[in-house]
Amino acid sequence: MRLSEIGGEFGFIERMRGPHAAAKGGGLAVPVGDDAAVLDAPAGRQVVVTTDMLVEDVHFRREWSDPYSIGWKAAAVNLSDIAAMGAEPTFAFLSLGLTEQDTVESLDRLYDGFSDCLHRYGARLAGGDTNASPHGLIVSVTQLGTVEAGRALTRSGARVGDALLVTGTLGDAAGGLLLLTQHGPARAEKISRDLIGAHRRPHPRVPAARAAAATGNVRAAMDLSDGLAGDLPKLCAASGVGARIEVSKLPVSDALRQAAKDLGKDPAALALSGGEDYELLLSVAPADVEAVRTAMDAVGVPSAVIGEVTRAGLHVVAPDGSETDLSAEDHGWDHFAP
Amino acid sequence: MRLSEIGGEFGFIERMRGPHAAAKGGGLAVPVGDDAAVLDAPAGRQVVVTTDMLVEDVHFRREWSDPYSIGWKAAAVNLSDIAAMGAEPTFAFLSLGLTEQDTVESLDRLYDGFSDCLHRYGARLAGGDTNASPHGLIVSVTQLGTVEAGRALTRSGARVGDALLVTGTLGDAAGGLLLLTQHGPARAEKISRDLIGAHRRPHPRVPAARAAAATGNVRAAMDLSDGLAGDLPKLCAASGVGARIEVSKLPVSDALRQAAKDLGKDPAALALSGGEDYELLLSVAPADVEAVRTAMDAVGVPSAVIGEVTRAGLHVVAPDGSETDLSAEDHGWDHFAP
Repeated sequence: MRLSEIGGEFGFIERMRGPHAAAKGGGLAVPVGDDAAVLDAPAGRQVVVTTDMLVEDVHFRREWSDPYSIGWKAAAVNLSDIAAMGAEPTFAFLSLGLTEQDTVESLDRLYDGFSDCLHRYGARLAGGDTNASPHGLIVSVTQLGTVEAGRALTRSGARVGDALLVTGTLGDAAGGLLLLTQHGPARAEKISRDLIGAHRRPHPRVPAARAAAATGNVRAAMDLSDGLAGDLPKLCAASGVGARIEVSKLPVSDALRQAAKDLGKDPAALALSGGEDYELLLSVAPADVEAVRTAMDAVGVPSAVIGEVTRAGLHVVAPDGSETDLSAEDHGWDHFAP
Repeated sequence: MRLSEIGGEFGFIERMRGPHAAAKGGGLAVPVGDDAAVLDAPAGRQVVVTTDMLVEDVHFRREWSDPYSIGWKAAAVNLSDIAAMGAEPTFAFLSLGLTEQDTVESLDRLYDGFSDCLHRYGARLAGGDTNASPHGLIVSVTQLGTVEAGRALTRSGARVGDALLVTGTLGDAAGGLLLLTQHGPARAEKISRDLIGAHRRPHPRVPAARAAAATGNVRAAMDLSDGLAGDLPKLCAASGVGARIEVSKLPVSDALRQAAKDLGKDPAALALSGGEDYELLLSVAPADVEAVRTAMDAVGVPSAVIGEVTRAGLHVVAPDGSETDLSAEDHGWDHFAP
């Protein structure tokens, strides 16, 4: 069904209001349908806000993904930013730019994926905006959350001597994207559903971040959206420190090791520079590492110490013991191949 | 200067952080540059959130506007939604999709317009996101505000017998857009700078809405973005009422009367159906009209009673006394011409 058949923007908002949008209550005083949403401001907490836009053919391609996954990922990347602040997600706002080729069915699937991801992590859809887009689908999300006042995890608290931890495994989403670009969806899914899933439907580390934050032992945190090699320098810059990480300690999945052979890539290079894993990077005093790891284990999320915070510089130690400066122009990760 | 010359997204965020973005303090606990912004939740107040996306060649055209005005308007349309809730604007989040043709200079001008409008109405830029867009400039804004708990002005409180008020004059933005489309920018500006200004740089009615809300006498409110004929039915549907408005009472500017002659249009038709005025539509008990109008006058904003709330139906009374049903498919406004 064409979108025009349900009465344009107004009809679509009505439709969205039905199955997907949050009803009044639970902190939502005025829901979808007025000029703006009104949210209760919980006592003793602060409001956390992040926004992220996905543009067709920049952040996703229709031939490599599906509407449900596009919706899921749009929610996930924003929830990941909320998680990285140690906050609890609350309400999401979804603005869409819809093209002529979008159908009611495909938009319903996008909303399904978006709200399934929200609900999985305790958030609800509270508003948004639908627009025409002449050239490509646009998905712009604002996600709100709340955190105990003064307890947000920022990027700026890392101290020299801290251990650097990451959750889960790294490089899976990049491996999935490479499989899709090199082989197309049908063959890529046969090679590794896990890696394709990591690319299409990442899971934001909301419970792990809350568990880690609750220990009171996380000094700095961020989520890995641009890859460790791209994001670690941001945490170091914000904290005014350096870092040394060891390639041999980067957690790599068996699925990535397998697929990397097929792709002719070094899995460690993908783990170091591949983006969109949405894992957490945490800076924790050495004495507190066990407490933080145990707290995250308790919610089912493994973690690994990959290095330490130093005074200055960004050093990567290869398996053979040689060091590379991460800030050099040409990273040349492939020389880490065993 | 090409955007690529300032170091891509990261460089641009650094640039934005400098002159435009809010520093820590004044309710902003963690500013631009972390995974998310952290805002203090003020005691006794609720948080109001709206989001609106502007897409090139749908909501604006580069040949009819300029980067400063595009930025201004992106802020204004969102501030207008906050105003319509009777709330005080606080923090804005700006997500951009930038094309190859965008330069550092044009983006700086867009930010200038955006933050000038924010500052004019007491808001600050607290975060955002910059992205590539293959086909056209995308400006997606989320605006937050706060309101005294339980005091937000919604669309749903209108009661039978209420007077319907609008602020300012109607149809100016539509007149400005028509001048631009029929004559191009150079000649259009000679005909009426006021109308072009109304189209390019609307002023959200933040102070008037706050003043009206402070009287405690506003039963329902919304801002006029889709035109009175498009928006009044939404207020009536939300309140479960009807309305009767009189064309002879619609406030029309001298500039619009003049330009309408040139355009061969009925100014009343533009006032009724022209969009993007961002004036307020208020529903107020007859006994309270004077108090509400006086409060808005005190902040320099004139208003007019244009009709009343009825049990059902949406009726427009023409200058000759004949009535038209606003819900009819073919509005045929031009028959209101004197």
